[in-house]
This record gives sequence, structure tokens and C-alpha cells, in this order.
Amino acid sequence: MIGKLYGVSLGPGDPDLITRKAWALLHTSARWAYPVKKKNGVSYALNIAIRADLTMPADALELIFPMTHDKAILAKYWLQAAHMVIEILHQGQDVIFLVEGDASTFSTFQHLAKTVRVLEATLQIETIAGVSSLQAAAACATMPLADTDDTVAIIPAGYGIDMISTLLDDFDTLMLLKVKPILDDIIILLRDKNLLESSCFIEKAGAPEERIISNIDSLYGEKVNYLSLIMVRNPHRIRGTMLRGCLKK
Amino acid sequence: MIGKLYGVSLGPGDPDLITRKAWALLHTSARWAYPVKKKNGVSYALNIAIRADLTMPADALELIFPMTHDKAILAKYWLQAAHMVIEILHQGQDVIFLVEGDASTFSTFQHLAKTVRVLEATLQIETIAGVSSLQAAAACATMPLADTDDTVAIIPAGYGIDMISTLLDDFDTLMLLKVKPILDDIIILLRDKNLLESSCFIEKAGAPEERIISNIDSLYGEKVNYLSLIMVRNPHRIRGTMLRGCLKK
Repeated sequence: MIGKLYGVSLGPGDPDLITRKAWALLHTSARWAYPVKKKNGVSYALNIAIRADLTMPADALELIFPMTHDKAILAKYWLQAAHMVIEILHQGQDVIFLVEGDASTFSTFQHLAKTVRVLEATLQIETIAGVSSLQAAAACATMPLADTDDTVAIIPAGYGIDMISTLLDDFDTLMLLKVKPILDDIIILLRDKNLLESSCFIEKAGAPEERIISNIDSLYGEKVNYLSLIMVRNPHRIRGTMLRGCLKK
Repeated sequence: MIGKLYGVSLGPGDPDLITRKAWALLHTSARWAYPVKKKNGVSYALNIAIRADLTMPADALELIFPMTHDKAILAKYWLQAAHMVIEILHQGQDVIFLVEGDASTFSTFQHLAKTVRVLEATLQIETIAGVSSLQAAAACATMPLADTDDTVAIIPAGYGIDMISTLLDDFDTLMLLKVKPILDDIIILLRDKNLLESSCFIEKAGAPEERIISNIDSLYGEKVNYLSLIMVRNPHRIRGTMLRGCLKK
């Protein structure tokens, strides 16, 4: 009997946004595993479960995913985590890997799952979809992420102002992630494009520290959290013609 | 005492993907409202609640959102729905509008909320974020929607092959919605770009009729459901340089 690995999305931070499926899995005898950035570090994912008044099992497994872009270091830690998980699966126990947000969307679970698959392709892995911080951000901002026929782009702001400027013209909604390093440049761009009024700044959507600022101009020169995004709706986008439904082909 | 309007996301179809918050709201005395395409029509949103073994209250309110792109007809029905909701709110009752998927993502709730806001700006409206079919699709396909530093675009396929071709080059993940009308052309394009192996076709993700096809080539010439999407990961994307973290202001 070999166990199964689950990527269990716990949603953006509000314990009430945990799905019933994730909630049920948290109440099975499966072994918990949770990501930290360093040994004995804080785990946002684990904290969501704790704030839902669940007690962390004594044998819960800390898996280290360091904050670095060094591929060799990352590969070493992914391997280490995968080996620890595989060992438990071979003991016949299921493993639930706790995920902040959604397990498919900018999540360490993808690296873990990929590494486990490479090491042992026959192991069973299942992703339990969850509420992502993107959906939580739209709900907080009371803005549609997408309306009928809308196009949406999601990019880390670090790709730079030129790319952001192009995408603003081409998409109805632009989700700019990790805006901190170029926040002031983004504000100037949105001002130039007359898009400040249809923009919203959202920090830690769905978490207790959530901060929502519609008046983005007021953030000029300010320091913001690393986990912050700007959502922009472009009401001026010029659309081409569209093929619809069964009309063609 | 005036009631509050909630957009209650019920997730992509699997009743277990309902969040705890939505679940709790379904068990309050709030008046249910659910969307249909025509009078006495089927409601996917309502069906999710029914499949969760909940009983539809006798006074649940059917709201008609017809399948048309005629703006005058749409506006008429949005107004009618908004007036019905506002009347109940003024009776002091909360209204929970049931949503398939996420209430911010291609959802009729956005039209309802906007119309209610236009008619009476002071009314309280809250969006309860949920699992969208995009996240469900990625989980089904066992593909990441986004990995570290990835870019994602979400577009209705109806914008045409030229736009799809450009976006495939520029984004790590492309979610092509409503692929039915140009499915064959998309398959040819993916073949030409050598992207068939990193693509997945997903029909009704998260619903009982869910269908997942990794071998997209096999769909050439086939008829598919209206609610189907193709998810493409482009491992060949050429990335520019990126500003990261706090390195550059």
C-alpha cells in the first residue's frame, strides 16, 4: 500500500475560504506537510489551518523551499523535500501538502509534484484546486476580473514598464504582481494612460493584514509589502471583431 | 433594516469545492437567487448546491440572464433582476446570488452587482471569492497555471488565430476559452508551433461531465462542448530580463 500526495489549496488567507474538500482532507489521518522559507520558519499555509482553529499534528512535516533564484540551490531543496515525501508515501501514508492560495498558481507545490514525479513516475498525485489570491483580490476590489469577452493578463511587474504599457493597451484586465520594486513608475504610467481611476492596489488579499487602496496616486513614494498587486481595468481597450459561439465553422 | 447582497461563488461544479464561507451562507435565512438563461431554465449554479444535498428553499428567486449579445435586451433583463433583488433587500432580507465558478471571473454576478449599484449606490454588496474553472482546469490537467516569474493570458478564443499566435509566443501559459468555433485552426497552430505536447483540452472542469484530453490532435474534426478550454504552456518562451525583489527601486 503506497500513499497518495495531495496539493491542498487553503485559499488566500481567510480560513473561511478553505474548500469543503480541503477541510475534509485536513481531518483525515494523512500526514501534514507545509512549506517554510528556512528551518523552523513561519509557514503562511500552515497558519491558515491554525487560524481555522485546527491543531497542527505533532508529526507534521516542515519542508524547506528557500527564497532564492539560484537553480542549483533550489534543485537541492526540491529533491530533499521530494525524498522526505516519498519516504512517507512508501510507509503507506497519504501526505497533504498545505498551500496558501491555489496549488496551481505560483505555488511551491508545483516544484514538489514535478520532482516527486521525476523520481517516481507511478506515485499518485492530486491537486485540490482552491481560491487564488487573484480571485480574492478582485472580490476585495469589487472589480470584475473578467466580464463577457474580456481578456486578462497576469504578470510579475518585474518584466518592466515597457511590457506593462503594451499589455495595458491590449488587455481588459491586467494583474500586476509584486509591484514593489517599480511601484512609482507604474503609478506614473497609469496616470499618463488615464487609468488611475480604474485601478486598485491590493496587499495580502484575503489575509488578516489585507489592505485595499483605490486611490493609487496616494502610494507614490511609499513602501509597500512584497505580496502586493495592482489590478487595472482598461475601459478604453480597442477590441477587434470576434467569432462567437457556433456562428462560424 | 436593509439586507445585503452577496455574490456567492460555488466553485466549478464539484460540490466539495464550495468554500466554508459559501457553505455557511447557504445555511442562513438569506433569500437564494440563481441565474437561468430562460424562464424555468436549468441553473448550473443552483445545481451545484443541489448536488451538495442542499434543498432549494421554496422562495428561491429565479433571475433571467439571456444568452445574447444584444445590449438593449441584456440591459432590460439586468434591470429586471436588479429591481427584484432590491425589493427583497428593502424587506430587510439578505440575498445570496449563487454563482458557478468564481463571482468575479466571467460571471453574471458582475452585471447584477453593477446594475444594483447604479440603481441604489448605498446598498451593501459583497463578493465571496471562489474556485474558478481556470484553477480547476489547471488542477485537472496537472499543469501549473503559473510557476515562478511566469506570465499568464486568458482570452476567449474567438479573438482569432492571429492574436492567439502572438500571445502563445509572449506568455508562459495561455488559457483559451470557448475554443469550439475555431478548434481545428487552434490544433493546426499548436502543431506548427510544436506546442501540442504541452497543451491540454478541458471540458467542464470540475463538473460531473468533466473531460480532459492531453492528446489534443485527436480532437481534430470533432465537435466539443461550448464550455471547453485549451490550456497551453509554452516552454520555449523567450524571457526578457527581470527586476526582482528590492534590488531596484
